[in-house]
Amino acid sequence: MRISLQEAADKLREAGRIVVTAHVNPDGDALGSSLALYHLLQKLGKTVQVLIDDDIPDAFGFLPGIEVIAKPDEEKYQADLLVLLDVSMDRVGRVIERCPAPILNIDHHITNDEKADYLYLDADRAATAEIVYQLAGALQVVPDKAAATCIYTGMSTDTGNFRYSNTTPFTMRAAADMIEAGAEPHVVSEALEKRSFKEVQDRARAMQTIEVCADGKIAGLYIGNDLYETLDTTEGFIDGVRIIDTVRVAILMKEVEPGKCRVSMRSKGVDVSSIAASFGGGGHIRAAGCTIEEPLAAAKAKLLAAVEKAV
Amino acid sequence: MRISLQEAADKLREAGRIVVTAHVNPDGDALGSSLALYHLLQKLGKTVQVLIDDDIPDAFGFLPGIEVIAKPDEEKYQADLLVLLDVSMDRVGRVIERCPAPILNIDHHITNDEKADYLYLDADRAATAEIVYQLAGALQVVPDKAAATCIYTGMSTDTGNFRYSNTTPFTMRAAADMIEAGAEPHVVSEALEKRSFKEVQDRARAMQTIEVCADGKIAGLYIGNDLYETLDTTEGFIDGVRIIDTVRVAILMKEVEPGKCRVSMRSKGVDVSSIAASFGGGGHIRAAGCTIEEPLAAAKAKLLAAVEKAV
Repeated sequence: MRISLQEAADKLREAGRIVVTAHVNPDGDALGSSLALYHLLQKLGKTVQVLIDDDIPDAFGFLPGIEVIAKPDEEKYQADLLVLLDVSMDRVGRVIERCPAPILNIDHHITNDEKADYLYLDADRAATAEIVYQLAGALQVVPDKAAATCIYTGMSTDTGNFRYSNTTPFTMRAAADMIEAGAEPHVVSEALEKRSFKEVQDRARAMQTIEVCADGKIAGLYIGNDLYETLDTTEGFIDGVRIIDTVRVAILMKEVEPGKCRVSMRSKGVDVSSIAASFGGGGHIRAAGCTIEEPLAAAKAKLLAAVEKAV
Repeated sequence: MRISLQEAADKLREAGRIVVTAHVNPDGDALGSSLALYHLLQKLGKTVQVLIDDDIPDAFGFLPGIEVIAKPDEEKYQADLLVLLDVSMDRVGRVIERCPAPILNIDHHITNDEKADYLYLDADRAATAEIVYQLAGALQVVPDKAAATCIYTGMSTDTGNFRYSNTTPFTMRAAADMIEAGAEPHVVSEALEKRSFKEVQDRARAMQTIEVCADGKIAGLYIGNDLYETLDTTEGFIDGVRIIDTVRVAILMKEVEPGKCRVSMRSKGVDVSSIAASFGGGGHIRAAGCTIEEPLAAAKAKLLAAVEKAV
């Protein structure tokens, strides 16, 4: 059932014991929104537990309250309300079965499955953290430095640090309020940009293998399984391809296991979601992905044939 | 003579023919501020000329009005007012001698030489573009999309896209207004992030040579003259060093000609300006630079000795 922001705030006010969760493979918005809500609800005197059914990436260690996040264990969690943030019902792992409580879902993804008991969805918001910012207003709780840092981080990560097309005047004004409340842009950005020496070296090594074709309109990084196994992360690699001035489609192909290649594409104009769909994948016009069950060379040839036709 | 923002606006209102200039080696704030003021003054019916005594980097080709910027030639320019933006009297090249008019200086650098006839200085602003934004208010001109894009670009570049510690709530709210007026964050950021394929390859090659010492506290990129001569740019290289998680001092050393090394340092805590000063350079606590008149190996040894003592 769709409800309003104020009704969502009322649900939170009425509950005493609240469990907050977000999607597996948690990102800055999932974690920032969850911890921000935790801090706000603590101020209201609620008993709050944050459960996420996945490992928390080290990069988010700077988020105030990160140490309270737990994985659901075998026990049942008693709560008056289970809050799902930045996610639909299907990507929260075992939290729902461990916590039998009415479900309040707060999300900004237009793809939300609308299966929760209560859903507040606003697809015009760049991040769920923006909705948590609005909830603070509806709950009449002023975010402290901890909550502000978490909200700021959620907005910053989901907008590529205020660089993507989803960045709105609302985003910037909410971020302004959060800086006023204590969030420090340079602290958040330095924490998120940190890389190990090995990661910096790996990335440099990978970037040297970028291949360009179709008069520079297509550029790709094709990482075989041998190389893939030596990498700690490939996060951000595609951005290093995308920035090439002639590029209309940027490709990152990783042979994640022998004979299985995961593909990410970013475009400037070309509809890459339809290319991804032709391989059983999906996404948006400017960002899409798919998996091709072939060794690297064969997967690359098939994909390039499709991309060359599109550009 | 120091004047107020409103007095600066009045000077602009009173003048009919206005020449606008900014510093040599122009960056996004110099160009964005100059062109924004150009657009605003055009709306007031002024005759405006933008002169910059240097080449304009291709990366700024997307700025609306960039084609009106000229280098001063041999002629004298007749004007009622010469406006110096984002600069002191000493870094505008030949513009002052070619344009004998009263000088209005608008700047955010605390190091301003205060030699202009009229000076509006606000060192609390992250960018001169923020002051131009305020001037639009004082002049009662609503920025159009062109002016908004220029102001947004100036703020974005001087704050490292809203990541540096100079980013304030004021910055974010002004940026919000500029997005509302037509500035597009993703268009500006994509334009500024663009690199040639060669630049991407060069950077990857350079990044592979990062050297780490002092238990990872010092990381440096040391570019000999042979390699330096093959590079189109070293812009952003130091950021690739700075992000290493263990690093307290990041170094970029470039042998710009045989026997002459230019050094940039970035720190997290350590005062690098005093290290730079010991080699005749200067800067801020977290960002400083100097030149060492030695071949690469000797310059590196001298610098590392000083940095190791500091960390």
